[in-house]
Amino acid sequence: MCQRPPLTPLVDALPSTVPFVGPEAQERERGHAFRARIGANESSFGPSPRVIERMAEIAGDMWMYCDPDNHDLKVAVAAHHGVKAENVVVGEGIDGLLSLVARMYVAPGDAVVTSLGAYPTFNFHIAGVGGRLVTVPYENDRESLDGLLAAVRKDKAPLVYLSNPDNPMGSWWEANELIRFIEALPETTMLVLDEAYGELGPASALPPIDISRPNVIRMRTFSKAYGLAGIRCGYAVAEAQVIRDFEKIRNHYGVSRMAQIAGIAEASGLKPLESATNFVTIDCGGDGAFALKVLQGLLSRDVFIRKPMVPVLDRCIRVSVGLDHELDIFAEELPGALAAARGN
Amino acid sequence: MCQRPPLTPLVDALPSTVPFVGPEAQERERGHAFRARIGANESSFGPSPRVIERMAEIAGDMWMYCDPDNHDLKVAVAAHHGVKAENVVVGEGIDGLLSLVARMYVAPGDAVVTSLGAYPTFNFHIAGVGGRLVTVPYENDRESLDGLLAAVRKDKAPLVYLSNPDNPMGSWWEANELIRFIEALPETTMLVLDEAYGELGPASALPPIDISRPNVIRMRTFSKAYGLAGIRCGYAVAEAQVIRDFEKIRNHYGVSRMAQIAGIAEASGLKPLESATNFVTIDCGGDGAFALKVLQGLLSRDVFIRKPMVPVLDRCIRVSVGLDHELDIFAEELPGALAAARGN
Repeated sequence: MCQRPPLTPLVDALPSTVPFVGPEAQERERGHAFRARIGANESSFGPSPRVIERMAEIAGDMWMYCDPDNHDLKVAVAAHHGVKAENVVVGEGIDGLLSLVARMYVAPGDAVVTSLGAYPTFNFHIAGVGGRLVTVPYENDRESLDGLLAAVRKDKAPLVYLSNPDNPMGSWWEANELIRFIEALPETTMLVLDEAYGELGPASALPPIDISRPNVIRMRTFSKAYGLAGIRCGYAVAEAQVIRDFEKIRNHYGVSRMAQIAGIAEASGLKPLESATNFVTIDCGGDGAFALKVLQGLLSRDVFIRKPMVPVLDRCIRVSVGLDHELDIFAEELPGALAAARGN
Repeated sequence: MCQRPPLTPLVDALPSTVPFVGPEAQERERGHAFRARIGANESSFGPSPRVIERMAEIAGDMWMYCDPDNHDLKVAVAAHHGVKAENVVVGEGIDGLLSLVARMYVAPGDAVVTSLGAYPTFNFHIAGVGGRLVTVPYENDRESLDGLLAAVRKDKAPLVYLSNPDNPMGSWWEANELIRFIEALPETTMLVLDEAYGELGPASALPPIDISRPNVIRMRTFSKAYGLAGIRCGYAVAEAQVIRDFEKIRNHYGVSRMAQIAGIAEASGLKPLESATNFVTIDCGGDGAFALKVLQGLLSRDVFIRKPMVPVLDRCIRVSVGLDHELDIFAEELPGALAAARGN
């Protein structure tokens, strides 16, 4: 044969680079394994034991397709954030959602603003749709809100990317600064607020979620704080019409059934309250009777904890900051106590 | 706010339809569960017990990202098909790969040929890049090879879709007819040969894989014959440059670690030879000594089978067509015998 099917001009012009070389590729090249796998901001602590158990339980169900609507996971995520399921879209990690956002808002030649040195995979997906990247330098190891804003205005960018807390610098902006930034953005510019590390930073860095605003997409993931990078599952929270627009182009069967169920087990799980003390009060996600059963289950497993008894407060259990080996025992016994309380 | 970020003209013009409504959505609407889930060509027989066991084993490893190269799975798939890893790309099901193919070969306004009534998700992804669908009616419940060819030529289509065996009709073309079709295609037209059901039809329907030809992409999946629809994993086999071109736009972290490992467990598994008899000869994927260990392991589990002893043939075990309950026992005991033979 002398000829071959031509790529589209857009794809043909793309470089053959990939955003990240995985540790596995490096190990294959070095010929031996790394002794410490601490380069990709994974959680070596692993997923919650309850989630591991749930994944093992459902392995035999993998003959069934995933629910293309990700319905149950969206409901769990929505409840977690106090929004509706119509405000949530689930994707193959934040990466998968970034690819869709690029296709939704960026036509060939459009300017897209990000920080110089910020997430390369965002840049990869912008290049993939023919967008023109405009980069703004970091200032004092933080992304420059004023710089991003100025670049958006100057280049009439339909899309701007901001990671908070930031990767790779680990820095963050406080919520009030972000709100000022969001309010100053042109209404026709979409902000991707990548909060992959949102659960790990100070709560004061997370602005309240406002699903009435059509130009902000908040992105979260199960990869970091939840220790589930391998399941490839992230989600975006936004105004309902924005979420509906994802439906037009997403891979409806992209997120595995395993990921959906692991995500539900995680998202609907326990929720520690912020603590300024030497104990952590944990919302068990049910009523007082449920939390009491959890407490009793732990006691019967020789784990001593207490709980508040006054209604509303009584949905919680209370755990002191103990020695590592004590907290290990707590982590070991909690899934069984929870399963028993749930009647499983 | 009075304005909102505009979608690109392409995405804005797309209808808000989705290719398939899942059974879960129908169940939510009906308010009760289906009694038989037999509408999505899933395999109710489930994945192999060995694969289920492997998935349960690795649940705790899900804190690690997937290998973005899908290296080990590509190697296993390549060995299975007698090609190189450079001829394989892995994606989030065939659906995920179809989306990429659309972006790679179809510019807005380009004609794309398929059969009227063929896979709707292909059409969805073509619409997603602004392609213009040209459809050819079925003839005698089969896709019309001559009709597709005529349409490709008439509309100078850069891309044509053919499913073999066909979904939704279950019909198929023999390999020699397909080869004639492929050889008659313009060199600049890419053929997506969707073989999602390839392992389930007659072997005579599968042309030999020719990775020297740059205008054919063969697509396979773990969803159907392997009973792993829920893990979202498919792959394409093609000429090396075609495979490299996928790298430019794919979601490198799209396929879960669980899917990669389940796929390896499946792809590197046993391979029954075609049989015209009342027994099935099974290639154990190793040498004679390995197959002998598998046989001995089965005998020690009170399962009587035999094996050929002459070198080359001796890589196999031989199993008679027994009663259902006997084959059940065989299926139950095989994973243990294999694991023992492998020294696990």
